[in-house]
Amino acid sequence: MLEAEQQWWKQNGVAISETIDRAGTPWVRMFDRHGKRVDEILYPREYLTILKRGYRSGVVWRALEEKSLLSTYLLMYTISFYDPGICCPYTVSLGTAVPLAKYGREELQSRFLPQLLRKDDSVWQGATWMTEIAGGSDLGAGVKTVARSNDDSWLLTGNKYFTSNAGAELAVAAARPHGAAPGVRGLALFLVPRYRRDGSLNYFIRRLKDKIATRSVPTGEIELRDSEGYLLGSADSGIYLILEVLNLSRVANSVVSVALAQRAMADALSYAERRVAFGKRILDHPLLGRQFENRLNQLRSAFALAWESVQLLNEVWMERAPYTDRYHLFRLVAHLAKYWTAEYAVDTAKWAMEVHGGLGTLAEYGVERWLREAMILGIWEGTPHRQILDGLEVMERKRAHKMLFARLAEVAPSKELQDLESEVEEHLELPAEEKEALAEPLFRRLAAFTAETLARKSK
Amino acid sequence: MLEAEQQWWKQNGVAISETIDRAGTPWVRMFDRHGKRVDEILYPREYLTILKRGYRSGVVWRALEEKSLLSTYLLMYTISFYDPGICCPYTVSLGTAVPLAKYGREELQSRFLPQLLRKDDSVWQGATWMTEIAGGSDLGAGVKTVARSNDDSWLLTGNKYFTSNAGAELAVAAARPHGAAPGVRGLALFLVPRYRRDGSLNYFIRRLKDKIATRSVPTGEIELRDSEGYLLGSADSGIYLILEVLNLSRVANSVVSVALAQRAMADALSYAERRVAFGKRILDHPLLGRQFENRLNQLRSAFALAWESVQLLNEVWMERAPYTDRYHLFRLVAHLAKYWTAEYAVDTAKWAMEVHGGLGTLAEYGVERWLREAMILGIWEGTPHRQILDGLEVMERKRAHKMLFARLAEVAPSKELQDLESEVEEHLELPAEEKEALAEPLFRRLAAFTAETLARKSK
Amino acid sequence: MLEAEQQWWKQNGVAISETIDRAGTPWVRMFDRHGKRVDEILYPREYLTILKRGYRSGVVWRALEEKSLLSTYLLMYTISFYDPGICCPYTVSLGTAVPLAKYGREELQSRFLPQLLRKDDSVWQGATWMTEIAGGSDLGAGVKTVARSNDDSWLLTGNKYFTSNAGAELAVAAARPHGAAPGVRGLALFLVPRYRRDGSLNYFIRRLKDKIATRSVPTGEIELRDSEGYLLGSADSGIYLILEVLNLSRVANSVVSVALAQRAMADALSYAERRVAFGKRILDHPLLGRQFENRLNQLRSAFALAWESVQLLNEVWMERAPYTDRYHLFRLVAHLAKYWTAEYAVDTAKWAMEVHGGLGTLAEYGVERWLREAMILGIWEGTPHRQILDGLEVMERKRAHKMLFARLAEVAPSKELQDLESEVEEHLELPAEEKEALAEPLFRRLAAFTAETLARKSK
Amino acid sequence: MLEAEQQWWKQNGVAISETIDRAGTPWVRMFDRHGKRVDEILYPREYLTILKRGYRSGVVWRALEEKSLLSTYLLMYTISFYDPGICCPYTVSLGTAVPLAKYGREELQSRFLPQLLRKDDSVWQGATWMTEIAGGSDLGAGVKTVARSNDDSWLLTGNKYFTSNAGAELAVAAARPHGAAPGVRGLALFLVPRYRRDGSLNYFIRRLKDKIATRSVPTGEIELRDSEGYLLGSADSGIYLILEVLNLSRVANSVVSVALAQRAMADALSYAERRVAFGKRILDHPLLGRQFENRLNQLRSAFALAWESVQLLNEVWMERAPYTDRYHLFRLVAHLAKYWTAEYAVDTAKWAMEVHGGLGTLAEYGVERWLREAMILGIWEGTPHRQILDGLEVMERKRAHKMLFARLAEVAPSKELQDLESEVEEHLELPAEEKEALAEPLFRRLAAFTAETLARKSK
Repeated sequence: MLEAEQQWWKQNGVAISETIDRAGTPWVRMFDRHGKRVDEILYPREYLTILKRGYRSGVVWRALEEKSLLSTYLLMYTISFYDPGICCPYTVSLGTAVPLAKYGREELQSRFLPQLLRKDDSVWQGATWMTEIAGGSDLGAGVKTVARSNDDSWLLTGNKYFTSNAGAELAVAAARPHGAAPGVRGLALFLVPRYRRDGSLNYFIRRLKDKIATRSVPTGEIELRDSEGYLLGSADSGIYLILEVLNLSRVANSVVSVALAQRAMADALSYAERRVAFGKRILDHPLLGRQFENRLNQLRSAFALAWESVQLLNEVWMERAPYTDRYHLFRLVAHLAKYWTAEYAVDTAKWAMEVHGGLGTLAEYGVERWLREAMILGIWEGTPHRQILDGLEVMERKRAHKMLFARLAEVAPSKELQDLESEVEEHLELPAEEKEALAEPLFRRLAAFTAETLARKSK
Repeated sequence: MLEAEQQWWKQNGVAISETIDRAGTPWVRMFDRHGKRVDEILYPREYLTILKRGYRSGVVWRALEEKSLLSTYLLMYTISFYDPGICCPYTVSLGTAVPLAKYGREELQSRFLPQLLRKDDSVWQGATWMTEIAGGSDLGAGVKTVARSNDDSWLLTGNKYFTSNAGAELAVAAARPHGAAPGVRGLALFLVPRYRRDGSLNYFIRRLKDKIATRSVPTGEIELRDSEGYLLGSADSGIYLILEVLNLSRVANSVVSVALAQRAMADALSYAERRVAFGKRILDHPLLGRQFENRLNQLRSAFALAWESVQLLNEVWMERAPYTDRYHLFRLVAHLAKYWTAEYAVDTAKWAMEVHGGLGTLAEYGVERWLREAMILGIWEGTPHRQILDGLEVMERKRAHKMLFARLAEVAPSKELQDLESEVEEHLELPAEEKEALAEPLFRRLAAFTAETLARKSK
Repeated sequence: MLEAEQQWWKQNGVAISETIDRAGTPWVRMFDRHGKRVDEILYPREYLTILKRGYRSGVVWRALEEKSLLSTYLLMYTISFYDPGICCPYTVSLGTAVPLAKYGREELQSRFLPQLLRKDDSVWQGATWMTEIAGGSDLGAGVKTVARSNDDSWLLTGNKYFTSNAGAELAVAAARPHGAAPGVRGLALFLVPRYRRDGSLNYFIRRLKDKIATRSVPTGEIELRDSEGYLLGSADSGIYLILEVLNLSRVANSVVSVALAQRAMADALSYAERRVAFGKRILDHPLLGRQFENRLNQLRSAFALAWESVQLLNEVWMERAPYTDRYHLFRLVAHLAKYWTAEYAVDTAKWAMEVHGGLGTLAEYGVERWLREAMILGIWEGTPHRQILDGLEVMERKRAHKMLFARLAEVAPSKELQDLESEVEEHLELPAEEKEALAEPLFRRLAAFTAETLARKSK
Repeated sequence: MLEAEQQWWKQNGVAISETIDRAGTPWVRMFDRHGKRVDEILYPREYLTILKRGYRSGVVWRALEEKSLLSTYLLMYTISFYDPGICCPYTVSLGTAVPLAKYGREELQSRFLPQLLRKDDSVWQGATWMTEIAGGSDLGAGVKTVARSNDDSWLLTGNKYFTSNAGAELAVAAARPHGAAPGVRGLALFLVPRYRRDGSLNYFIRRLKDKIATRSVPTGEIELRDSEGYLLGSADSGIYLILEVLNLSRVANSVVSVALAQRAMADALSYAERRVAFGKRILDHPLLGRQFENRLNQLRSAFALAWESVQLLNEVWMERAPYTDRYHLFRLVAHLAKYWTAEYAVDTAKWAMEVHGGLGTLAEYGVERWLREAMILGIWEGTPHRQILDGLEVMERKRAHKMLFARLAEVAPSKELQDLESEVEEHLELPAEEKEALAEPLFRRLAAFTAETLARKSK
């Protein structure tokens, strides 16, 4: 499966992906010539070719059919070596299908699930819309969208500000049922189809964002105006569902980050193998050669950490609140992985540009694209600050680090492990303000240690 | 002087600079409507407004009139807070005027120097064209342009591949006199005016490069075709002149990098002061607050290091080969400064995007611009690899580190200084291959130590 | 006055105008970095330089201060030779100031008029927003925006689809008071400021239109959402006010069309004077030479017709319904002029491209711009179909052609005039369907005859 | 064949064609990352999909295999309804294959012809490069490219300024053999492959032209630098070959113009069928309805005239100088057809924009594209001036109008025909200067009469 995927991408996908990046932000055609609101996104036409291929290959349907996320994330790893943005539509489609399958009433499942799992080009896409203008970290304060009950469905009104995969046939959206509690406890998660039952548009694309990269996914602003919505789970458990959706995409982000770094390295390698300076290939210059070696080791570590988050998620993705310890261990690893892999991707993309010298700064050769793409990976699904603070919390409240250290003990040098463990424990005893202020170096060390240990383990 | 500069930029320059960045790479109009080759660069029209202002303020004329580089680099620091690219034209104009003033025959000086030093909008621009298709690091192998003697001038033929300020009225260009020795010893430096004595174009702009940033400078490819050139200095000393020109731009690069980082921090600050999450301004979140503090300290260090390179250059810029020890000390500091400030600029620009969260990834808000600009600063005038290796060489051959440590001894903690000194000495004893392969961490530490020590000193 | 204007444009305005055209549709920054809706239009910064200059020179204030439109339209003629789009903001500002001065309550006048008439860069801009998604010709059916009375003001809700000068400080907008009659008789005209009394935005820019030309005016879609509005005139007389506003812009369109044609001819001439083929300047080729002569004559006719519409408007612009015969004569002449001058502008722009041969098809030389600009002039303010049918109506209902023929009799060859008059009368006797179907050739002949006669008269 | 072609275009080609137009002028990647000059044109990737399809369908191979041009021009008519630009690569490929087949030495034919006639995606493209900077009309004066004999081949040096299908595998280029006579008599036609026998580039793409339309063909500037060339025919007969090549493309231009007009009408119709104003579809408004009728009649006439030029060319395309009368008749008809169909296409595209009202001026809806495309058709292959003057010449020197009138006599009303014939004869008696100056109205009338007569005949 993966080999066929690679072949196709080398021969076809790479050039299409370049076309899409170069074309920049697509247009939204809001009205057709006859004055009907249509909110059609005008992509370079071949966008559909790469987009639909991944769905056919099984980035979504395999997860539910095989009852395992492994194929999905393997496919994502393979594909995002060629186009790191295209996995965003896949991820949010997965993030729509999974809560529907897990929490949707039977009638909702039979009505919507089959379309998301189709194996041909008529497949529906999903989307996950949480963030509003006040920001995405503090959802309890940020979500102002209100849902009012209306017979068997709900009517949602509000504005979503960062909406991946605007234009999807079916989205999940966070909203607050009218009269519900303030804060995160009052949130609920709703299915929102593109079209109303009467065939008209159920939501509006106010505009697409002019992002610096990931042009393979249309990110926009969405207006919900009495939009028909269907409740998933109970009206007071939305925050759990939202975080479960986020788990899927955070793990995807880690996998994609590693693939992107691998791509940047591959490009740097193919250049350094042929570029000559001072009488030899620059790859044979000792300084550059050593950098390649080091980065290759880091690539192995980063992959090991990302894949650990995949495997743990694969164990717990069907859990519901209240969660097991395993789930909390997963959370810690997911934060470490998201943080570490994105930092690594950015740094590697920067370095790949430097290897190319002046050519690295030109739009013409596309090396600079990896840095743009990596910056988005670093910020999406939570910036480094967010990962650090949430990681801190799960260590503090759930003592997830104990489980992590236990898991690493098998292969980690015991002295080093003990030292780090003590350090973490001492850190957790600090006064609140200081604990947060000083968290970054600790978290970085913990991520590096975990990644390297896991890499050793996987040998 | 600097205050007036700032005022003007706040009120006018900022918006113009955004226009130019957004407009992307300008067009070259190769032929006018009547079929005459003109190689005119079509900029947004206000480009001239910001460009000419800096010349009037004295980025070039002050250096030669005041016989000091301090005003020039202070102006550059002030201006590049608002537009980091515009200092490139200024630097290469300086890099044309200085060798002309230092090495040009009297007749050349009286013919060309006054135009470069004009204080009004009729000022001529300079340009420094060395790099050819095979790359800019290894000039000895890379420069294929040939100069043939022709009465009182020379005729140059060759292609320059990365030419800052394409379109300048007067360039300095590296070329090899016909029959000269191979390698760097056979290079000479020539003045090349835009127009021949008969009024026709003296060089051709093959095209402009589509760079990811620094759109305030037209970087192109230049064709020299029997182009009239005037030798500066002697025909076998070109490499010294070339490196002296490079000194000017490397130091400028350091100053600009610090200013850019300061700008990125200022933007992040103005955002963090108003953005609220979890009930308080994000600036008041301990983790982010601490990051601001740390970065502010780093800013002081980076500035101290950059400014040290300015001051040392100001002492030695009129030296000619053979050079004093002071010159070699300057070289080491310049390598450390170029390396360290650019790394700091890139890292700060990346962080400023993260502070902005999702907004940081949008073209609309311009934060991402600082990362693009910083990446070019990191690569221009020598990538990190180049700085490290050249820094290593000047330590090895000229023992420049001894002078550096002597200079720092006054304020550095003596234990730390001694340890680092021993480490450097041991490193220099390593076998050649290993010495180079392991140079990076040592160089990074040396740069950090130097920067922090100098910052302490300047308090 | 006009000479100074020309000088400035030659030296400064031309290059700015090219920058703006090349930059394409500007961006709308909907939200500032802090999440506040601002709807700011991001123009190349020098847009303000050309825009504000015209206001200072008096395109608006002179009309009301001098109680004559002549200076205004002379300025427009002069300016649009250099930038045909910039007169659109001027015209709609005039179209805001005039009804305010004519129909506004004293309190509205004293509150808003001074800002529109300022002679410095703090001048407010106006805008005229009528058209909605269903189209602009049939306003009776097309205007769905509703106004509800609210104390001393009104609250307007609806969407305007083609809004010139989106972002203006003060607009006039057509709306139907709640409960008013259907059709044009139920329309009213309201003043709508950019900001509410509480300082928040009073209307929203949904997006700007990506027009093929006239980039000097931001044309957008506007959302009115309980927007504060102030009634001009009475609630049932809106259609008169709307048409009076349209008079101002239709006449401006004619003046601009002639100026644009003159510009295209000037460019063609400067090319033909220097381009050589078959041994002589192409201007000296008999066929091309003859075309220049003919077009120059047509230019005189077109100008005479446009200026006739200016002079007649200048006589009647302060009339109120019920109107005099003079007003109806003006209407006929305005339809003929709008139709004829735009057709002439398109045809001349096309021809100027042909004169340039292959160069005419390149974006680089800007000749093709005149065709793009001309096409918009041909369609704005009523397509040819609209002019023909409305011209037919004013002949039929008001017998405006009788007054026209009387006015032309003085200089027109009497036989020709009588023949044409009979032809018109016969045409008006045709059955309705046929009268409309066959109207085009008659209207064209009438326009040509009028233009040529007026040109003869003005000699 | 044609139906399958249409089906494919409706389902696939239309969207791809829009992508290509929207993407604007493609980039040229002059050097690969390794510094090798490659001159690769970076198109949206699906460009190849539509491009290669036409070759497979037989736009080139059918002409030579079927020994008839009818299939070729039928295919072009079908395809250019969807993309008027793509027929340019086809035409110039035909314009390379035909002279090679007709005049090439056997060895050249066996070396190059099979590649041009392949029926799969490995097909080679041709190109026809005549025009230099001084212009395309006066080739005798304009062609400065020199060819020097070199063993069995020639070496060409010069610059071509308007080169359709830059990047083609095989071009035909006009050049003057060293020492040949001045003027058109000294021209020769050469085959110029993309690669030299040693595998390096045989010509260079200086840049691509930023054209307003026909983005489906890369039009550039080409540098020939001792480029290997192979003489077609004899060294003093080049002008005949050049004009024969031009015949092929002039006729293609006529066919494409009619198809484009048909497309603009189809778009206008689909709009007018649904748009409602004043209570009815605008198609049912008598004035617009009548315009549709008239234009449909004109479409029939224009097609009849274009097709007449196809049929006549099909009779004479294998003739060599000295030519038969039939050939001269063809020339006159080709001039009339090129002139008339392009004027009709421009006028219809303009009108289709007007039918769409304001929407017609927006980039979003694509109606404006037809005007841009049509303007290029009007100018390429000779502007109207050129057609008129060359048409005049073939009437004067070869009395081609006599043959034309004879051919039309069968169906034309005899009185009208006799009047026009006398008028032509009288015109030809005028003094030279006047004959040219007054030629336009006569030529227009002759074209219209011919088109309408042929349409009548074809009923």
